[in-house]
Amino acid sequence: MNAAWIDTAKNLKPHLFRTQKLPVAVSTRLPCSNTFQGWKMDLLRDLGVEETFILETSCDLILEFKNLTVGYVRFEVCSFEGILDSPIHIEIVAGERPLEIAQPFDPHEGILSRTWLQDETITIDRLPFFVCVQRRLAFVYLKLRLNDCGPQSKVLIRNLRCDEVSSVPNVDDSFLDKTIPKWMQQLCEVSLRTLRLCMQDVFEDGPKRDRRLWLGDLRLQALANSVSFKNYDLVKRCLYLFAGFQREDGTVPACIYDKSDFQAGGEFILDYSVLFGSTLLDYTLHSGDESAARQLWPVACEQIRFALQFLDESNVFQDPGNLWIFIDWNDRLHKQSAMHAILIYGISQVIELANLLGKEVPEFIVHRDCMRRAAREHLRDRKTACYFSGPDRQISWATQAWMILADVSEGQEAHDLWKALELTSENAILPNSPYLYHFVVEAMIKSNQISLARDLLQNYWGGMISNGATTFWEVYNPSDPMLSPYGNAMVNSYCHAWSCTPIYFIHKYPQLVSEG
Amino acid sequence: MNAAWIDTAKNLKPHLFRTQKLPVAVSTRLPCSNTFQGWKMDLLRDLGVEETFILETSCDLILEFKNLTVGYVRFEVCSFEGILDSPIHIEIVAGERPLEIAQPFDPHEGILSRTWLQDETITIDRLPFFVCVQRRLAFVYLKLRLNDCGPQSKVLIRNLRCDEVSSVPNVDDSFLDKTIPKWMQQLCEVSLRTLRLCMQDVFEDGPKRDRRLWLGDLRLQALANSVSFKNYDLVKRCLYLFAGFQREDGTVPACIYDKSDFQAGGEFILDYSVLFGSTLLDYTLHSGDESAARQLWPVACEQIRFALQFLDESNVFQDPGNLWIFIDWNDRLHKQSAMHAILIYGISQVIELANLLGKEVPEFIVHRDCMRRAAREHLRDRKTACYFSGPDRQISWATQAWMILADVSEGQEAHDLWKALELTSENAILPNSPYLYHFVVEAMIKSNQISLARDLLQNYWGGMISNGATTFWEVYNPSDPMLSPYGNAMVNSYCHAWSCTPIYFIHKYPQLVSEG
Repeated sequence: MNAAWIDTAKNLKPHLFRTQKLPVAVSTRLPCSNTFQGWKMDLLRDLGVEETFILETSCDLILEFKNLTVGYVRFEVCSFEGILDSPIHIEIVAGERPLEIAQPFDPHEGILSRTWLQDETITIDRLPFFVCVQRRLAFVYLKLRLNDCGPQSKVLIRNLRCDEVSSVPNVDDSFLDKTIPKWMQQLCEVSLRTLRLCMQDVFEDGPKRDRRLWLGDLRLQALANSVSFKNYDLVKRCLYLFAGFQREDGTVPACIYDKSDFQAGGEFILDYSVLFGSTLLDYTLHSGDESAARQLWPVACEQIRFALQFLDESNVFQDPGNLWIFIDWNDRLHKQSAMHAILIYGISQVIELANLLGKEVPEFIVHRDCMRRAAREHLRDRKTACYFSGPDRQISWATQAWMILADVSEGQEAHDLWKALELTSENAILPNSPYLYHFVVEAMIKSNQISLARDLLQNYWGGMISNGATTFWEVYNPSDPMLSPYGNAMVNSYCHAWSCTPIYFIHKYPQLVSEG
Repeated sequence: MNAAWIDTAKNLKPHLFRTQKLPVAVSTRLPCSNTFQGWKMDLLRDLGVEETFILETSCDLILEFKNLTVGYVRFEVCSFEGILDSPIHIEIVAGERPLEIAQPFDPHEGILSRTWLQDETITIDRLPFFVCVQRRLAFVYLKLRLNDCGPQSKVLIRNLRCDEVSSVPNVDDSFLDKTIPKWMQQLCEVSLRTLRLCMQDVFEDGPKRDRRLWLGDLRLQALANSVSFKNYDLVKRCLYLFAGFQREDGTVPACIYDKSDFQAGGEFILDYSVLFGSTLLDYTLHSGDESAARQLWPVACEQIRFALQFLDESNVFQDPGNLWIFIDWNDRLHKQSAMHAILIYGISQVIELANLLGKEVPEFIVHRDCMRRAAREHLRDRKTACYFSGPDRQISWATQAWMILADVSEGQEAHDLWKALELTSENAILPNSPYLYHFVVEAMIKSNQISLARDLLQNYWGGMISNGATTFWEVYNPSDPMLSPYGNAMVNSYCHAWSCTPIYFIHKYPQLVSEG
């Protein structure tokens, strides 16, 4: 642990801005087989500014906010009619998706803690009472219920609001380009909201669940931030946190907790680690600040050196089997070749950083070139022209995308790779998460497949919006609505940082707009 | 409603004193068939002043306080070892009896609201966190549990305390007479604690459950207060509240809620109403303040007049069947004759009040005398010499006690009535609650049965102490540990005002000590 670096990070603690958000509608939930995840919210009435609600025993009051909101909910409970004989239990359930409001949380299924699901029971002795929910909630829907009291009991709910928090002030339109197509404007708006709500004391992955700083997510958040809020200090803070928690073997942890004090998570993810240098390079290029790169440069190199130990005598990456290689949320995906390509990409980025800082890394250049040759020689299927992974020669989008980003496949060959992939479409493994889809889009643009990239933005990220998203999701597979890496779609995060990059693409690549 | 009288009450709002109480032991619960209610608490270790506890996932931490405590619990939650991946749920269960700590609250049984049972779940996002339980709790035992988190999770609990509240400062020894027998000192100590903890903004019946001002309980609390804390303003406040909420038919409500504002409960209890004048008389005699009696005198008379309408042509009280007559918690008890006697007693007290105030109430004197004669003529069994009630000529302790207090039975006859009752012991209905036992003791003393009264104090109230009570209970039947008027012994109140009169008897009647 490097205390000085962690201190640097602590000194960059951001101010949290508060914005008051009010509910816009009273709604009711309806099962609906045509709706993604099987539930829809039906409007009962629109709300004005100073609304008061009657809460009756065992009748749900469902309040809907305009967009996903992250913050602290408060309201007043006042007496209405009748006498409340006993103390009152008010149950509050907050949900990002109708699913969470419609279905009971218990019995809890899945591999993650029940406590991620957002419910509270407040006990009230006397009225009026001011409820301030201490937990920071992330939600579109709030369900309130008066439980366990006499059957006639009613109370009034007044001045319900959410103090939304973010290290970015409330978004205005200035980031939005009104000249681009409407659907692109929508993607930008939802990207911005997602990014902003994940920008808290650190870049969180999801404000509802996990709420941790993850190295992989950070990279994509930093990209979106570079074309929008340009809060480079927050990126710097996070880079210093990872570097500050460097472990004995030189690697950086995959995630950092921000609980009582900062703590490194026990997880290590090889592909995230290899991209540390890439995030550092991006920060340096975007912010113009070279001092961080000069300090953290050795850490970037150490990540690469750690990964290089897993090359075999043919310079092909071999999965040691005891390390977490993420790539995507997909158990069926064979990850070896994608990891091989990510390592090449990571080395290239560190070489670029070296050039920027006036440093020499000849051994990295040798490795990069050898690995590129090795990939073409050992991981490319002559017949299909696709890159494969593993003894079963598995073809996946992940492998093709990363081979292009690693410049293993270039020019016309890279351009044609997507056609080749389409021809093997029956067996090719598709992405599950927006994280991998980001790299697919990046690779499509790089290989000059602009309309493919645009279609993907429109259909994949746009698909979430069609399904009611006001922020982008952690997991989205249009054909598998209940897909969850955790065995429970209710704990999926529906405001998830790694999905916020459409705005980055649209700003960075004008050809996405002009060639439309 | 008389707004001026309610204002008088409001202006007498007492100051609430706060006293810090710490747990004295870590305990564990054990089933034990020899123990009253089937559970005992076993000491794991005694506690010092600045104790810190480790709370592990799904392991109960049971903290025991020296005595029953009423107030606000607070503590700090700090990180210990390992990383808390998710938010934390800390469940807090507070119990007056081991039963509440040992048995699950759900599924909830009985006729009262589940919310009376004292449990809370606190959600914590970040550590350290200061928990202040907003509900005022009444408890001896606190059970803490870390729920739904990872299996390895542990947190530290620090500085756990209860800010005990009462309108009486912390009790010192000055009220205790050290010259009386030890067991009597114990009764006095437990009486004082019970009374003090029920003295909040008003005289509450029980600080855990009900938390209401009841007219019947008030009378006994005021008696105990008159030999101890002498907080006559609180008695006056409560008398003005009842008078202020007088209804259209002249009656006063049986209880007052103190929630947002004061509200009268819908209940009317005839025997409570008839004793309003008695409480007013006691207040006047004890405080020396005649002004309240002069103002509230008409209210006392109206209670009597309302009850007199139920006399038949023989001047015997007839139960109209649509009024609540309390007497005791006992469905088997036939209440008509006891009510007849209580009405005589109530009239006598109002006559005494009239004498004190220099007023004339000739019609009440006539009614009193006629009702006494009627009782001897129509409600007395020649063979057993006992007073009976109803067509089945039911013999009960309630009826005998009240006939003595009403001076229907006097002198040697009253003295011998207890012997006569003993002879019919197989069929005689025994009391269930300390409320009725109070009047039994009073009647025994009045009929010069001092050793019977002393035995009852020692065995009945002393029996609660032997069964672990540090405050006296709402319901106690030594042979029926799970007796509950509400179908659930866990919602019984174990610090209940109407049981606090042993100290009154011991102070008021020196013969209880001298003839020992």
